[in-house]
Amino acid sequence: MSARVLIVDDLFPNLKLLETKLSLEYFDVVSAMNGPDALAICEKGLCDIVLLDVMMPGMDGFEVCRRIKTTPTTAHLPVVMVTALDQPSDRLRGLDAGADDFLTKPIDDTALFARVRSLVRLKAMTDELRTRAMASRDFGFGDPLAAAAAETGQNARLLVVDDRRASSERMAGALGQYHCVEVEADPQRALVRATEGHVDVAVVSLDLDGFDGLRLCSQLRSLDRTRGIPVVMVADAGDRDRIMRGLDLGVHDYLVRPVDRNELVARVRTQVRRKRFADSLRESVQASMELAVMDGLTGLHNRRYLDAHLAGLFAESTLRGRPVSVLLLDIDRFKSINDRFGHDAGDEVLRQFAERIRAHTRGIDVVARFGGEEIVVVVPDTGLDGAQQVAERIRERIEAMPFPIHGGTRAIDVTVSIGVAVRLPEDGGPASLLKRADTALYRAKEEGRNRVVAAAA
Amino acid sequence: MSARVLIVDDLFPNLKLLETKLSLEYFDVVSAMNGPDALAICEKGLCDIVLLDVMMPGMDGFEVCRRIKTTPTTAHLPVVMVTALDQPSDRLRGLDAGADDFLTKPIDDTALFARVRSLVRLKAMTDELRTRAMASRDFGFGDPLAAAAAETGQNARLLVVDDRRASSERMAGALGQYHCVEVEADPQRALVRATEGHVDVAVVSLDLDGFDGLRLCSQLRSLDRTRGIPVVMVADAGDRDRIMRGLDLGVHDYLVRPVDRNELVARVRTQVRRKRFADSLRESVQASMELAVMDGLTGLHNRRYLDAHLAGLFAESTLRGRPVSVLLLDIDRFKSINDRFGHDAGDEVLRQFAERIRAHTRGIDVVARFGGEEIVVVVPDTGLDGAQQVAERIRERIEAMPFPIHGGTRAIDVTVSIGVAVRLPEDGGPASLLKRADTALYRAKEEGRNRVVAAAA
Repeated sequence: MSARVLIVDDLFPNLKLLETKLSLEYFDVVSAMNGPDALAICEKGLCDIVLLDVMMPGMDGFEVCRRIKTTPTTAHLPVVMVTALDQPSDRLRGLDAGADDFLTKPIDDTALFARVRSLVRLKAMTDELRTRAMASRDFGFGDPLAAAAAETGQNARLLVVDDRRASSERMAGALGQYHCVEVEADPQRALVRATEGHVDVAVVSLDLDGFDGLRLCSQLRSLDRTRGIPVVMVADAGDRDRIMRGLDLGVHDYLVRPVDRNELVARVRTQVRRKRFADSLRESVQASMELAVMDGLTGLHNRRYLDAHLAGLFAESTLRGRPVSVLLLDIDRFKSINDRFGHDAGDEVLRQFAERIRAHTRGIDVVARFGGEEIVVVVPDTGLDGAQQVAERIRERIEAMPFPIHGGTRAIDVTVSIGVAVRLPEDGGPASLLKRADTALYRAKEEGRNRVVAAAA
Repeated sequence: MSARVLIVDDLFPNLKLLETKLSLEYFDVVSAMNGPDALAICEKGLCDIVLLDVMMPGMDGFEVCRRIKTTPTTAHLPVVMVTALDQPSDRLRGLDAGADDFLTKPIDDTALFARVRSLVRLKAMTDELRTRAMASRDFGFGDPLAAAAAETGQNARLLVVDDRRASSERMAGALGQYHCVEVEADPQRALVRATEGHVDVAVVSLDLDGFDGLRLCSQLRSLDRTRGIPVVMVADAGDRDRIMRGLDLGVHDYLVRPVDRNELVARVRTQVRRKRFADSLRESVQASMELAVMDGLTGLHNRRYLDAHLAGLFAESTLRGRPVSVLLLDIDRFKSINDRFGHDAGDEVLRQFAERIRAHTRGIDVVARFGGEEIVVVVPDTGLDGAQQVAERIRERIEAMPFPIHGGTRAIDVTVSIGVAVRLPEDGGPASLLKRADTALYRAKEEGRNRVVAAAA
């Protein structure tokens, strides 16, 4: 996978050396010799990953990393700190600043390239989603990027897969301070648990008794239901080949035994943030798409949704020879509610009305605002008798309890008229079905309102 | 990258051999011994890629491939045909059936795995988008998958990068029958051309004079503006290492010299389809998100969009000390239009009304339906005088020409009243600005309609 790599180092020879190496690997290289220049390049979106030196005059690498990771527009960029500092405390400081990895010089080139490729690939998975989510933000749907940058990465549900008791207890102890941790010694049971859907990050030992832990990592990365779970491998330092292989398979990160508690905590936190970032992007796009088929006032589906789905339900009903019925509901004398108590009161009544209808319909029924004070309910697999019963129940619930208005300071009586129709063999499409329901509704109004009238079958 | 690989072969030993090899590479393997079983597995979404034998009793591999590639729910699955058939005509038949590659036995394992990894990675890039697009389809926004499966992959804009005249002319000749082809000998100019945005697929020779063609491929794959362009490499058979490297960099496909014309045409067609598939997914998600902020009747933005954007424009105006004004427009005696000519006529008038307003506002102005027959126009960087001029121009254009109704068979006179207000230093938020515009609109109505009234500044 090709990518644009930003190298940040205040020493020109270092910069050139790394630039040459990366260029030979066909990466596109951009460079900066100080923190502010690096941040500007990140903010302009001119790179996919950052290789960052720590010791620079002015703003040091830790601060550059912290800024990248807390700025909404750049927080998604992977950062690898590359430095001569070799104390565990430096390493931890880098990871705490949000770095995805912290490599100590002399750098093992193969390891560096494998890491860069892996991080770039993982980023590419969410790039498309991020672009859509940013469009959603431009439409005014709130800002998932800002929320993601503010995410602390705590209180996650972790799955530790390790069959060495001492090791798993040590890891669970360290992680348990910040997260809810489950330990599983058996890889097959671990996989089942992960597919059940309550795992944010998996920590997997590669040295399971009689089982190649890398296979579990690979399965987690390839099953539909577990693909979204970041995986952290735990391996012996000598197991370099399998570690590289794991990165290539899409595993997100690794730790080498003996596991440093603080490093474990820091790396897992980074993965929790990654998971929540991707989740929030997905939710943001999904939510804005859902809004397109929702009525803003009542929270019911809108006409656009009804049109699309009634057509489908109608066709399916015809195909399978099963009934489908439609209820058309209209609040009685709604205009006079608006006139006497104001538009806000009218809105309150509509919201309540929708709420009560929803409470007396099923999940498979389509409930949609048809416009104004009219609501349509589509009841699949239900004949005229069944649909009339549903309608009568709703009519009773509307009449039975007055509607609170003016923020609950008073209440008014409301009634509803309902027209009901079932699909007939001669119906060419949903329009004639709706038309009959409308005619029945008209009769209900004519006959004195607050009643259910079924169209002749 | 890990993935679920479906192996289809009617001979058990073949199946087992390939299964063992892939499993050692940490792929998850599913298998089928005939076409119908294979199709069922694909349709259930249980695999990410298909390795397909050609010679099977009953439904042969060509037919299985054709069905996978023309079924909307499975068309996105990469298919590699693996067979003992070694005639160019077999190869072409496979590619014509839509196969992403056609490998002849004995299989070079390294090449096979590199190809599988590359195809799986490319698929993963669009998986997230495909999931969103399918949700959009469930909401009733049409079916991008069906459109993509029906795509013929012709009439694309191709860029051939090759500095050997005989070679580029031969390729341009073959491709020119189906596409619009541009040839570019210089890699730098080719990159510029690609960034200019009118290229669907790039075909790049790796043997450019004094330049490593793989670097151009890598640049095309890493720049934001060219990432969406599939790249096909053309290389000498002996250049295996660079071909494998290219696949690893994200290049989509390759051909070996001497280039077979038909194979070139088939492989490029596959890439054109891939590009259009990704584009249509993207458009589908984008379009359904846009619908969430659009008013269905007038095509203007809706209240949701107005609320989000007016807040932003108001804040910016306060911050920069620049004016921002608001026009509130209401069609005069709209109810009587509905009563006299029917609701359809009312809708026609509203649409026309929106159209004329749009014609007299700028791209940076926000024009939104506020509800009923009211429309709001937000004019940034414009004071009260400027806003009044805009309003007066619109008022004149509404009055000047009658509005066609009943499908153009008659026309009626329509007028509009407009209230105008500019942000004042004491305004705490957009609500007070809108409130003043509303008061001004009320005065315009009181004073006889068909006029513009500005709120006192």
